[in-house]
Amino acid sequence: MVRLSNDYLKELITEYKPYTTKGEVMTGIPGLDELNQNDLGVAVMDLNHNIYSAGATDVSFSLQSASKVISLLIALEDLGKEKVFQSVGMEPMGDFFNTISHLESGDVHRPFNPMVNAGAIAICSLIKGDTVEERFDRILMMLKTITGNENIDMDPDVYEAEKVKGDRNRALAYYMSSSGAVALNPQDALDLYFRINSIRLQVHDLAKIGLFIANGGRLIEQNKQLVSPDHLNTIQAIMMTSGMYNESGTFAVEVGFPCKSGISGGIFSAVPGRYGIGVFGPAINQKGNSVGGAKILQRISADLNLNIFNQTHTHDIKKSAE
Amino acid sequence: MVRLSNDYLKELITEYKPYTTKGEVMTGIPGLDELNQNDLGVAVMDLNHNIYSAGATDVSFSLQSASKVISLLIALEDLGKEKVFQSVGMEPMGDFFNTISHLESGDVHRPFNPMVNAGAIAICSLIKGDTVEERFDRILMMLKTITGNENIDMDPDVYEAEKVKGDRNRALAYYMSSSGAVALNPQDALDLYFRINSIRLQVHDLAKIGLFIANGGRLIEQNKQLVSPDHLNTIQAIMMTSGMYNESGTFAVEVGFPCKSGISGGIFSAVPGRYGIGVFGPAINQKGNSVGGAKILQRISADLNLNIFNQTHTHDIKKSAE
Amino acid sequence: MVRLSNDYLKELITEYKPYTTKGEVMTGIPGLDELNQNDLGVAVMDLNHNIYSAGATDVSFSLQSASKVISLLIALEDLGKEKVFQSVGMEPMGDFFNTISHLESGDVHRPFNPMVNAGAIAICSLIKGDTVEERFDRILMMLKTITGNENIDMDPDVYEAEKVKGDRNRALAYYMSSSGAVALNPQDALDLYFRINSIRLQVHDLAKIGLFIANGGRLIEQNKQLVSPDHLNTIQAIMMTSGMYNESGTFAVEVGFPCKSGISGGIFSAVPGRYGIGVFGPAINQKGNSVGGAKILQRISADLNLNIFNQTHTHDIKKSAE
Amino acid sequence: MVRLSNDYLKELITEYKPYTTKGEVMTGIPGLDELNQNDLGVAVMDLNHNIYSAGATDVSFSLQSASKVISLLIALEDLGKEKVFQSVGMEPMGDFFNTISHLESGDVHRPFNPMVNAGAIAICSLIKGDTVEERFDRILMMLKTITGNENIDMDPDVYEAEKVKGDRNRALAYYMSSSGAVALNPQDALDLYFRINSIRLQVHDLAKIGLFIANGGRLIEQNKQLVSPDHLNTIQAIMMTSGMYNESGTFAVEVGFPCKSGISGGIFSAVPGRYGIGVFGPAINQKGNSVGGAKILQRISADLNLNIFNQTHTHDIKKSAE
Repeated sequence: MVRLSNDYLKELITEYKPYTTKGEVMTGIPGLDELNQNDLGVAVMDLNHNIYSAGATDVSFSLQSASKVISLLIALEDLGKEKVFQSVGMEPMGDFFNTISHLESGDVHRPFNPMVNAGAIAICSLIKGDTVEERFDRILMMLKTITGNENIDMDPDVYEAEKVKGDRNRALAYYMSSSGAVALNPQDALDLYFRINSIRLQVHDLAKIGLFIANGGRLIEQNKQLVSPDHLNTIQAIMMTSGMYNESGTFAVEVGFPCKSGISGGIFSAVPGRYGIGVFGPAINQKGNSVGGAKILQRISADLNLNIFNQTHTHDIKKSAE
Repeated sequence: MVRLSNDYLKELITEYKPYTTKGEVMTGIPGLDELNQNDLGVAVMDLNHNIYSAGATDVSFSLQSASKVISLLIALEDLGKEKVFQSVGMEPMGDFFNTISHLESGDVHRPFNPMVNAGAIAICSLIKGDTVEERFDRILMMLKTITGNENIDMDPDVYEAEKVKGDRNRALAYYMSSSGAVALNPQDALDLYFRINSIRLQVHDLAKIGLFIANGGRLIEQNKQLVSPDHLNTIQAIMMTSGMYNESGTFAVEVGFPCKSGISGGIFSAVPGRYGIGVFGPAINQKGNSVGGAKILQRISADLNLNIFNQTHTHDIKKSAE
Repeated sequence: MVRLSNDYLKELITEYKPYTTKGEVMTGIPGLDELNQNDLGVAVMDLNHNIYSAGATDVSFSLQSASKVISLLIALEDLGKEKVFQSVGMEPMGDFFNTISHLESGDVHRPFNPMVNAGAIAICSLIKGDTVEERFDRILMMLKTITGNENIDMDPDVYEAEKVKGDRNRALAYYMSSSGAVALNPQDALDLYFRINSIRLQVHDLAKIGLFIANGGRLIEQNKQLVSPDHLNTIQAIMMTSGMYNESGTFAVEVGFPCKSGISGGIFSAVPGRYGIGVFGPAINQKGNSVGGAKILQRISADLNLNIFNQTHTHDIKKSAE
Repeated sequence: MVRLSNDYLKELITEYKPYTTKGEVMTGIPGLDELNQNDLGVAVMDLNHNIYSAGATDVSFSLQSASKVISLLIALEDLGKEKVFQSVGMEPMGDFFNTISHLESGDVHRPFNPMVNAGAIAICSLIKGDTVEERFDRILMMLKTITGNENIDMDPDVYEAEKVKGDRNRALAYYMSSSGAVALNPQDALDLYFRINSIRLQVHDLAKIGLFIANGGRLIEQNKQLVSPDHLNTIQAIMMTSGMYNESGTFAVEVGFPCKSGISGGIFSAVPGRYGIGVFGPAINQKGNSVGGAKILQRISADLNLNIFNQTHTHDIKKSAE
């Protein structure tokens, strides 16, 4: 079996860099990052806090949809599972992440899950705080705590771009308000949503977020249980079924552990009880997922035997553990 | 932690039997089983081939949608992953299993995945064999081999009922034929589909199917690798994202391991590298899943710490294995 | 054949008043009119400017969707037919008037027609004028000219209510803006849309609007051609296929001349070359159309032989004309 | 104003023949007619039974969707309006004529109207007769009576082709059967549907069908009222709102009288109380309507002032009649 190392990851970057030409950087949005199509980076962190990385590790980029996991986590801590999932479902949806039709069909007009835009906007309306700023600060603080990176912050240019390009998200928010399925203040929910999408970080930070989830919400260095481990099981299950837009099923098959992507090209993954992984490659495919990032995750899963459905390793472990 | 035993399972049956009144037996279909709403049974098998069970273990019932996993497995063996997923997708779908609209929307008119009716009918058209009978015999033989139960067979009354109530499935097959997205002979594909839905077995058999999958396609007693382990990873991932109709996301969160249900009330589950589980409770909810069966799976998952996203146990095992 | 008179219309009011209990007044919208469920009024005007009326003729109510015809007319005058129908289609739609899904499906994301909310909002974005106020004044002026009623004006309470309840319309406007199918400033288009919906008038005014259309845009008393007659043919065709929400087909069959309704319970009708008709009955059915109003129109059509598909009268007329 | 004559029609054929290159003949269906893309023909018949024609008047072609009007007429005669419209709606639908999604959405799963394929199949199930042959013979007899053409008959090659290419229609029939919204025997309804689609006739016959409808169901030469005039009002209204597939709204605007098309390129039109028109041009557009045929109808409507919403002529006639 392959041994995890910086050199191993460097080889992967070299091998999969050509795939960055097969995707496209999100365009037409002045100010929204300034991403280089050929960038490709990866970072993997284990439970002993060893971190391995290669490629574009010093490029910072906005969280975009990857923020949806953090806001869900805080909403779960604030209100508990039952109350959160009264407003938003937990079922995967076959359509694109920004679709509005699903809010109109069916008996309930709730968003399908917290990973689609409508669901994430609804989740934003649940997070506690007197003002949007206060709620945003709670999310930012959580991210700083998880990553140990005090420099993480919102990028004001990206935030402005989010507002300029935000009409689809406005449509989703106003539709939910009009149907009454989700009680929300559209302006506030959208403002918070635009802000957290604009948080800028690097691929190491993604790996740390992944590890935090993979470790059930326990901060390893501080040996501190930051959030309820139950919520992390919930979050991983939702990442598995819905984290990669309408390509989640393919990732479950081809990668086999929970992942969450953003259209700026970042993906973080949680390998339960083992690793946190961050990848970054702004060349995305038509479903919105990093082309090079997907290749790297697929390869790491195979090389390190990380597919959670692959019983062989678990079985061996289990036997030796008995 | 709870210890698995017949007594433990008996307690679960007693505790969750009242929930059978909260579902309904599939009705209006003369000849399709003759199921008792209050039946509830469970069987769990481990890698050492120990089997534990309780409740309605002697009741036989038709496979219904649970057959979709077996036909997918044989199609994967016959044609390989790439070719199979040219005809059928691997993405979860937010709608009901018998919906036809999804075949009309989108650019590609393929079924979303092999677990929805349209997808399973398409899969039936891929299985090799000169006649429907021959193709059916291959599926039946596989089931007999997996379960070691030579008595498993199609129930002719259920088969007749399948044909009588089969107009929705006919609509799906003819629609796929008309759009040309899937090359199929509608009559043959439907006939095979109706036949495999009508295969009758018991809850122990479901546990054995689950264990076979959880063990990566290796027959334990014969110590024989029957099918490619890769295909079982694929199948588990698809069961996880799409196995429980449009309640799959909820099962991923609440149960946390791959499951597949049928509307006769059977569910089989694969706990990767650990257990096969069969439950049977014909009182189903509006999504088509056994109400009592769901309760039992959720409880077993919690009691035996089987949620594959719960890193704690894996972590401990991993540490002791190192 | 029946002879048109005040007495005849009074009989109709008496006969159909009981039907007002079969509908419901639009509720839950503070300030939006204060309508009496039992009100029922009718006015019919002929080409000689004779006007007959009965019932609730002194009640004023807001135009609501009936405004969509006036805004379309002005857009046609401003830009011409070709340009208007680049932004909005002219096909009837099977769904409810406030549906958003249709904007997402299909290749083009244009609204189906100018009579559904999305289409009317798009039309509002086409009307010429430097400010929303200026554009509104042009529409109001047109209405005053058509009706000869200088007192027609926007009701500020209704306007406020429109804004409070306007989230569905906001969703439609922002969705169109996001898809780029229609170039519009969502805020301005919505503001104009809310304003014209809030214009308050009476059933006589509706009859005059209907007559103006039935007379091809010619003001009878002034003997003045106010707008291009071609546009009135277009408008009548669109009223016929789409004027009564997703009950337009039924009105084409049961009434047989062009009508346009609003959810405050007003309907105006154009009987080509013969009459303008206004009815008002705020008890509306589930499709949004006045229950009593529909009954009266159906009856007048039959009694006065006004169904435009009924060749008998035209035939007789034609023969005598030859 | 233009005077109707063979020469006038000949000019139109010459002028619009080039448009036949802008459409395409329905392809991929062996045996289904053998149509020449450049054919273009027209026939107009007035109430005095004068007939004018030009172009491809000797080419025979199959009725295809134009048959839907005849089957609706017989169903109305057999069961009455109320009963017919319990099974099928009378509202226009925004989607393509062979769509199936509309049967799945909404509360009622009825077809939207008798002019879409699902609706026409449902109508076929309503027509009285002990066998499919008997029911077919009744329809054929009606056509022979209306046209006075004893040679009209089903083309067996087209009928075979209809069955070969019939899977979409099978999907519609089986879906309706499965939902229970329409009580039908799918096989019989489909067989009758395929048969009447295969009836072969010429453009003069279409003009006669149009005139029969425009004249309220009265046979002019025999001076005989063949069917209830009420049903013809209903049929014209439905032709107006739904007769030209999802281009019906455009025809209402651009042509302005009831029309019904078939994908073999025939269209018949009823100008209420005035003319029957048949056009034939097998080069169809993407909506399924004859490109050259549409041009000719638009032109005749303008030249002869036949738009039923154009009040000017009616007004003049009315005045002289008073």
